[in-house]
Amino acid sequence: MKTQPPTEKMATAAAFENLNTAGVEGAQDPESLTEPLLSHQRSRSSISNSTSQVALVGADIAENDFFKEDWRTRGRNQMIQYIFMKWSLCFLIGLIVGLIGFLNNLAVENIAGTKFVVTSNMMLANKFGMAFLSFSIPNLVLTLFASIVTATVAPVAAGSGIPEVKAYLNGVDAPGILSFRTLVIKIIGSISAVSSSLLVGKAGPMVHTGACVASLLGQGGSKKYGLTWKWLRFFKNDRDRRDFVTCGSAAGIAAAFRAPVGGLLFAIEEMASWWRSALLWRAFFTTAIVAILLRAFIDICKSGKCGLFGTGGLIMYDVYSADASYHLADVPLVLLLGVVGGILGSLYNFLLDKVLRIYNFINEKGIAPKIFLACTISILTSCLLFGLPWLASCRPCPSDASEACPTIGRSGNYKKFQCAPGYYNDLASLIFNTNDDAIRNLFSKDTDKEFQHSSMLIFFVTCFSLSVLSYGIVAPAGLFVPAIVTGASYGRFVGMLVGSHSNLNHGLYAVLGAASFLGGSMRMTVSLCVIILELTNNLLLLPMIMLVLLISKTVADAFNGNIYDLIMKAKGFPYLETHVEPYMRQLTVGDVVTAPLQLFHGIEKVGNVVHVLRTTRHNGFPVIDENPLSETPVLYGLILRAHLITLLKKKAFLPTPNPTVNDAFSQFSAVDFAKRGSGNGDKIEDIKLSEEEMEMYVDLHPFANASPYTVVETMSLAKALILFREVGLRHLLVIPKISNGSPVMGILTRHDFMPEHILALNPLLARSRWKRLRIRFPPSLKPF
Amino acid sequence: MKTQPPTEKMATAAAFENLNTAGVEGAQDPESLTEPLLSHQRSRSSISNSTSQVALVGADIAENDFFKEDWRTRGRNQMIQYIFMKWSLCFLIGLIVGLIGFLNNLAVENIAGTKFVVTSNMMLANKFGMAFLSFSIPNLVLTLFASIVTATVAPVAAGSGIPEVKAYLNGVDAPGILSFRTLVIKIIGSISAVSSSLLVGKAGPMVHTGACVASLLGQGGSKKYGLTWKWLRFFKNDRDRRDFVTCGSAAGIAAAFRAPVGGLLFAIEEMASWWRSALLWRAFFTTAIVAILLRAFIDICKSGKCGLFGTGGLIMYDVYSADASYHLADVPLVLLLGVVGGILGSLYNFLLDKVLRIYNFINEKGIAPKIFLACTISILTSCLLFGLPWLASCRPCPSDASEACPTIGRSGNYKKFQCAPGYYNDLASLIFNTNDDAIRNLFSKDTDKEFQHSSMLIFFVTCFSLSVLSYGIVAPAGLFVPAIVTGASYGRFVGMLVGSHSNLNHGLYAVLGAASFLGGSMRMTVSLCVIILELTNNLLLLPMIMLVLLISKTVADAFNGNIYDLIMKAKGFPYLETHVEPYMRQLTVGDVVTAPLQLFHGIEKVGNVVHVLRTTRHNGFPVIDENPLSETPVLYGLILRAHLITLLKKKAFLPTPNPTVNDAFSQFSAVDFAKRGSGNGDKIEDIKLSEEEMEMYVDLHPFANASPYTVVETMSLAKALILFREVGLRHLLVIPKISNGSPVMGILTRHDFMPEHILALNPLLARSRWKRLRIRFPPSLKPF
Repeated sequence: MKTQPPTEKMATAAAFENLNTAGVEGAQDPESLTEPLLSHQRSRSSISNSTSQVALVGADIAENDFFKEDWRTRGRNQMIQYIFMKWSLCFLIGLIVGLIGFLNNLAVENIAGTKFVVTSNMMLANKFGMAFLSFSIPNLVLTLFASIVTATVAPVAAGSGIPEVKAYLNGVDAPGILSFRTLVIKIIGSISAVSSSLLVGKAGPMVHTGACVASLLGQGGSKKYGLTWKWLRFFKNDRDRRDFVTCGSAAGIAAAFRAPVGGLLFAIEEMASWWRSALLWRAFFTTAIVAILLRAFIDICKSGKCGLFGTGGLIMYDVYSADASYHLADVPLVLLLGVVGGILGSLYNFLLDKVLRIYNFINEKGIAPKIFLACTISILTSCLLFGLPWLASCRPCPSDASEACPTIGRSGNYKKFQCAPGYYNDLASLIFNTNDDAIRNLFSKDTDKEFQHSSMLIFFVTCFSLSVLSYGIVAPAGLFVPAIVTGASYGRFVGMLVGSHSNLNHGLYAVLGAASFLGGSMRMTVSLCVIILELTNNLLLLPMIMLVLLISKTVADAFNGNIYDLIMKAKGFPYLETHVEPYMRQLTVGDVVTAPLQLFHGIEKVGNVVHVLRTTRHNGFPVIDENPLSETPVLYGLILRAHLITLLKKKAFLPTPNPTVNDAFSQFSAVDFAKRGSGNGDKIEDIKLSEEEMEMYVDLHPFANASPYTVVETMSLAKALILFREVGLRHLLVIPKISNGSPVMGILTRHDFMPEHILALNPLLARSRWKRLRIRFPPSLKPF
Repeated sequence: MKTQPPTEKMATAAAFENLNTAGVEGAQDPESLTEPLLSHQRSRSSISNSTSQVALVGADIAENDFFKEDWRTRGRNQMIQYIFMKWSLCFLIGLIVGLIGFLNNLAVENIAGTKFVVTSNMMLANKFGMAFLSFSIPNLVLTLFASIVTATVAPVAAGSGIPEVKAYLNGVDAPGILSFRTLVIKIIGSISAVSSSLLVGKAGPMVHTGACVASLLGQGGSKKYGLTWKWLRFFKNDRDRRDFVTCGSAAGIAAAFRAPVGGLLFAIEEMASWWRSALLWRAFFTTAIVAILLRAFIDICKSGKCGLFGTGGLIMYDVYSADASYHLADVPLVLLLGVVGGILGSLYNFLLDKVLRIYNFINEKGIAPKIFLACTISILTSCLLFGLPWLASCRPCPSDASEACPTIGRSGNYKKFQCAPGYYNDLASLIFNTNDDAIRNLFSKDTDKEFQHSSMLIFFVTCFSLSVLSYGIVAPAGLFVPAIVTGASYGRFVGMLVGSHSNLNHGLYAVLGAASFLGGSMRMTVSLCVIILELTNNLLLLPMIMLVLLISKTVADAFNGNIYDLIMKAKGFPYLETHVEPYMRQLTVGDVVTAPLQLFHGIEKVGNVVHVLRTTRHNGFPVIDENPLSETPVLYGLILRAHLITLLKKKAFLPTPNPTVNDAFSQFSAVDFAKRGSGNGDKIEDIKLSEEEMEMYVDLHPFANASPYTVVETMSLAKALILFREVGLRHLLVIPKISNGSPVMGILTRHDFMPEHILALNPLLARSRWKRLRIRFPPSLKPF
């Protein structure tokens, strides 16, 4: 008998630490999911084709004899090693993500900073044409770079990445979404896109980066690029990898906003589909590492060793004011702010969705149009940012300004722009600046008289439109920062309109405006609340922020869904929702199961297995046995495609259909059945078998999951969905109420629970769909 | 056909909004769970007796024909009404809990404040004997009052209540734990216990209060006291009530600490066993209401309308210091603080557990010994608080004191006590004060020279021992505030020892010490972190607090479990853990199912039903039917005891065993099968049937859940537990692999998954129990 090195045993042993495997399966499906929008209609129609089309999903726990045997050989030391490795990996994730986050900020601040300094110097010398060129050409070059690398090397790195990671954590694995290539492009692309003054954020890409780092570490590096570490390869199952990815996405937000608690809550509230208390603790550990690391770097940068970084620091709009006083009298105004913010947020989502659909037509045409689109947006942005401040009149510097006025260098509240000495351009202070500095200006207190109404309005409209237009280009682009800057300008504008009728200073209005717009667009509550608190470092604002978020989310929910869900839907991901549609209660699982079902016998002919694997795309097959007591066969278990392929590859065949002494355990090692890294699965097409071998038999018993989850055909779809969702299944066997003939009626997969599939089978039910009590415009009023 | 008023239909319709019913069943079991500790050993042995002994648990979703019919008649308006009611109730919970929290603080500050003012005046007049009496007699009277009302009216109101609520949310409903009586006693008792200078907290009782309020509102008031409101009675199912209780416990922490986000996280991390994103949002709404309400009250109190309240305010130890600077050099010290804090915290848990076991012997003897014990502790506390400051030497007032020195009135850092004018007693400033003021003193900055080493050490030891001794008395008593005060004194003592070797001021050490002690005792991470942040209003401390919490929790976890779990275990609650014990993977469900199983036929004789209900305590019974195709019967479904009793009560009988036209829907209304309020279930003993009726038949088909969750006998126990836990089941049917004879092998309930039960069946497995890699002392070293 072949002896196993302990680490390999451990690898699979890990799969059993907690059987709560609610998982994610590597996408073995050749059809790409990466085109951003096209697949929408396609998936609607194709989705009824059950297990075939979109990326593969879920992962049942493979509880077969083989794994059971493997489990029994585990020792206490392996357990300790496993736990130690788990925490070490979280530590590493925190460390690496924190480091990337810091370097990202450092690079952006230095690249964008240099650009602004050069341009400002030109402006000072009254060389306005040169100034425009020295502003717009670097912008164009940076955008070009970002879009070319994204479009050619890793198209999946475009956009925020949050929808993709969210879908992954729900069990939908788009190809290459967490690969090493995506990681590199995401980092580089995000730095150049943000530096190019496009109105895109860095938080979304940081989340995706964190998820990639976590996934790569979890699967032991990238096989494709030879970057693998044996000692990292303990985590060969979906649950562990999913946990790491959750920690990674929490670390991403923590690094982007220096908001460790906010990042953690973001992962709970928005990202994770399954959550456990133990995971909470591990994610907390990860974000704590990020927070401590960033704190250390800031200490270093404070001494001026980080170039143009340092003064700006990490995003942290410190608006602490000991006099953050407000009274009940301010509440109605805050409510109004929340209502309007909610409407604006849902309008933003609506427009973004439409723009993405339009862009999709362009992007479908190939790489060149994609890049052309990105360049167009870059030129438009440069023109607006440089051109609009000319509309604003110069204002005299206040005599009691707390800082130099006009500021000439890198940052500051009073940009000189084209104005004469002693004057400043308030619109330039906002618009001709990095987003971080603009937000800092908007959030700052004691600046109530600094901006004009018209400037603020222009700024708001510009931000709103540019962020809607910029997200869809083929480059890493986040939505958080654009939403904050748009919301802050909206809030500040409201504050200026209200003027002295309120006790709140305009900086607080900007914070509340940002909260309301974020709430209206992203529809998170706790996590946004804590992120804003951590950004602004003012806990006294808490009740107000909570109120605004609640109002704006409620209002916006009446119009449409959250922005990430809209994007996910547009991409056609089969995301499994938590809530149950009302019509699912009127259907039984028997109503949605689609024939024909492929079955295997306990001892099956090799040729038969090969044929079925080649002709279907199913990922799980019931295994049946003859019943010694009656004529109807009995269900033995469920076998996975991946395990069948391994069996075929190892050629563990029997010459006759009679089971011999079971020597399966000597022929296979646990690692053979372990979960592969993303996209590394073998394909049936790659397996070559001789005619003779095709006539042999294979004993499936030791490799089939002998106790799959089953439901009876009369169970309501809603109830089955709960089982499927809560336990995190990939296959759910449907058994007949009264067995006559086959012991299995069919297999339910994720696709069978998709509303599109069910409504295609039962079109009459569409009207009883759960619309979340949403406001519907009559067709005549429908915007477009 | 009887027409239903819409509200009644809605009530049950609510049960179906999301079938994810993971619930809690009213305890119909006569055996009380309320004795705090005795049941420990008892439950160990009795638990193998399956469904009989401890409180009833879980709730499967009753998906029978009857409910299905009811579901189909639901309209859109009912849906809107239901959603509106749900949010209104959350609003009400927030409002009431916030109000109670405020009144609680107001009462405590005024009662305890008056006591301290009177005593201080006596001390000023050098009447030390009188001063002692005017301090200790009110203390004794208040303790006496609290313990008498608790012991006689609602013994379950004793202690913190957090373990009970946590168990409820897991599915264990101890009798009367959320009743109106408990609520009243909890509020009154907590006010008097805290005012009596006992070292007990108010946060735990506030959580329990919040849970009671939520539960009573959710079930439409208290039937027993005639306080019911029809319009509130929409929520007749476990899931909705459980959600409200979760919101209520979040509101409790929010009200106690003015920490809305912390309260929410506490509910997620510590309390809830099932969690959904939608619930997050609703709990957030509830805590936001609390936060806004408290903010409004503070505005009112600031104008001095709240007596002795106002200056102290709600607990809020504002330690904001813009210079909260720290460097990497401080990290090793902080690590050490965390390690020692973790050890102290686990020692605290260990001692508390032992003391509770000793107290239990006293408390078992009856009401008088209970009250005597409480009085002894009160007198001991009074003596220590009044006596110990005499040990401290008087210190001269600092010339640059920011406030009057010595302070004479209500609060302040410099208590005069017995000292001469111009001098103050530092120990009295800490010990002869309310806990809130002591914590405020400890957390305050720029007071590094205020306390002596000896005073701080004495204070720490006193707090540690008194809080261990005080928790077990028969009065509402929380653990949070004692842990904070103990931890803060420990941290400050460490800070004083380190002295000028560190950049941190002593107030920050106190905060970190409190974090480490809380982390070591309660083992929460995120929620404690946020609660401490919200208490201290200093976000810059975040990375340090995270670090300390992680370290102390890790260290403490190596010794024992968290304090609430220890208490819950001592009370014998069958709490269903998330993690799976390793030996559960070696067992199949067939190994733990216990015979004999009671079955009913689809059409069953009434006498038979009555007999079975009278002779067993099972809560669910499989219903079987003849199979037209073979000799072995088939499983039809599962019927609940409560539904059988309703059937018997309504006497819906058939004269012959032939099904007639099904008129079940005309005889019953949805409300008949709706979930009753806690403890309101009918009992089989109350149903009287004539001889004739006993010979009739009852058709169980329309009332049985026709699609219960089933598992095959060969499934591993671990896998079945995941299904049971994640979907929140109450019964899980085990079906045989190859059916010969009965189609059901048995029913698994919560008790079958308890480690005690499994290990009793399979004693050899005990050694493979998952010990969480805990340090075990060799027997010779075992403390006691």
